Amino acid sequence: MNALENILAHRSIRKYNADSIPDNILTSIFEAGSRAATTGNMQVYSIIATRDQQIKEKLLPLHFGQKMIIEAPVVLTFCADFNRFNQWCNLRNADPGYDNFLSFMTAAIDALLVAQNCVVAAEHFGLGTCYLGTTTYMAEKIIEILNLPKGVVPITTVTLGYPAESPGLTDRLPLEAIVHYETYNDFDTAGIDRIYSQKENSEEYQKFVTESEVDNLAQVFTQKRYTKKDNVTFSQSLLSVLKKQGFMNND
Amino acid sequence: MNALENILAHRSIRKYNADSIPDNILTSIFEAGSRAATTGNMQVYSIIATRDQQIKEKLLPLHFGQKMIIEAPVVLTFCADFNRFNQWCNLRNADPGYDNFLSFMTAAIDALLVAQNCVVAAEHFGLGTCYLGTTTYMAEKIIEILNLPKGVVPITTVTLGYPAESPGLTDRLPLEAIVHYETYNDFDTAGIDRIYSQKENSEEYQKFVTESEVDNLAQVFTQKRYTKKDNVTFSQSLLSVLKKQGFMNND
Repeated sequence: MNALENILAHRSIRKYNADSIPDNILTSIFEAGSRAATTGNMQVYSIIATRDQQIKEKLLPLHFGQKMIIEAPVVLTFCADFNRFNQWCNLRNADPGYDNFLSFMTAAIDALLVAQNCVVAAEHFGLGTCYLGTTTYMAEKIIEILNLPKGVVPITTVTLGYPAESPGLTDRLPLEAIVHYETYNDFDTAGIDRIYSQKENSEEYQKFVTESEVDNLAQVFTQKRYTKKDNVTFSQSLLSVLKKQGFMNND
Repeated sequence: MNALENILAHRSIRKYNADSIPDNILTSIFEAGSRAATTGNMQVYSIIATRDQQIKEKLLPLHFGQKMIIEAPVVLTFCADFNRFNQWCNLRNADPGYDNFLSFMTAAIDALLVAQNCVVAAEHFGLGTCYLGTTTYMAEKIIEILNLPKGVVPITTVTLGYPAESPGLTDRLPLEAIVHYETYNDFDTAGIDRIYSQKENSEEYQKFVTESEVDNLAQVFTQKRYTKKDNVTFSQSLLSVLKKQGFMNND
């Protein structure tokens, strides 16, 4: 399978069989990760590969009890990481100026490009993957469990294992929703209606609406899945994590 | 070439020939991008594909005069984008609670996974790519040129074109520098020395040290390439962009 076919076949896999992942395959995945472009080739990221069941049990509630954390043989936590680079600078009589928000974003960008390379490589090896958005919500406690030092912030988590399910492709918005040529072409009401019509009319999503006892699909998101109250709480907590990990010293 | 070989062969390409990119290839790249996992399948990102030479000329100084911007046939600006989603919510009597830092991070994560998928797909088609880190530095002015509405923040830029150079692979730190098993294993002085020794001893980097008239490679980064002064300036500017684009209302 070539890279394009590999990418087009992506599904999030949430059920895994009991097979562990051979070390050489894991190493290949990390090598693929490390080939991603990084700012100034500083590689200001790190990957925590957790296989120990006891540590995964501690991570489980931080990822809201999503069973993939304990059922997947490997949990990868991708981190923005200036710790190693700062240590190197300090040992070389170079004064690191990376205790600020820009540096956090630089490191987060590095970490995410590496994560997606790892996912594509893992799928090449027949593994299933699932991203967990809970990482930024619960960063403070994940930092404790994984012993992340100052300068390190977890950005996303990927569970990895051999698939025990084969779901269909997930729907996506038409390309006109996400691609703008030359400059941004903002939407009018008809445009929004058109872009979201397939999603709103799908049986799967209509089931969500009924189950959530709301009027429509947009309300499933705003009232049930990603509420303002939660977002505000997690925002405050994430910003305090950035301060605590040393990324907001000049802002 | 399979996906792994494709990823391992990555080089940043900064020189392009005059060939334009056929529309069907560009569309395939965007389709590959759109298959990336996104939080709650909200797809809170957008891609601005700029081919117009006049607009690229305006972007050029914002990317610090890096010639790829005008020499590449296509410039892709990947954006965190809650504008479309918020508009949809508002039209459906759903109150969007996405005017906060957590939502910005959610959208930035979406945008970056999509970007890396597009890069891998582009390389599958024989195209060369280069990420430009200047995007977060100059976000405010890029927003003006690309007409990005509230709720949209540019995160990274990728130039795209057929290669007119074939550079060797860039060095990377050994995997022990970036992969930690189970939890974070912090480095001691010997570890830092070991991890950075290959880089510090390479002829290419020693040339940088001489040219920069500093004592060592770490100082090239702290005193010349990524200085505290610049980082502080760009941090303040990026945080003010997040406020202006509506992402810091509750923090």
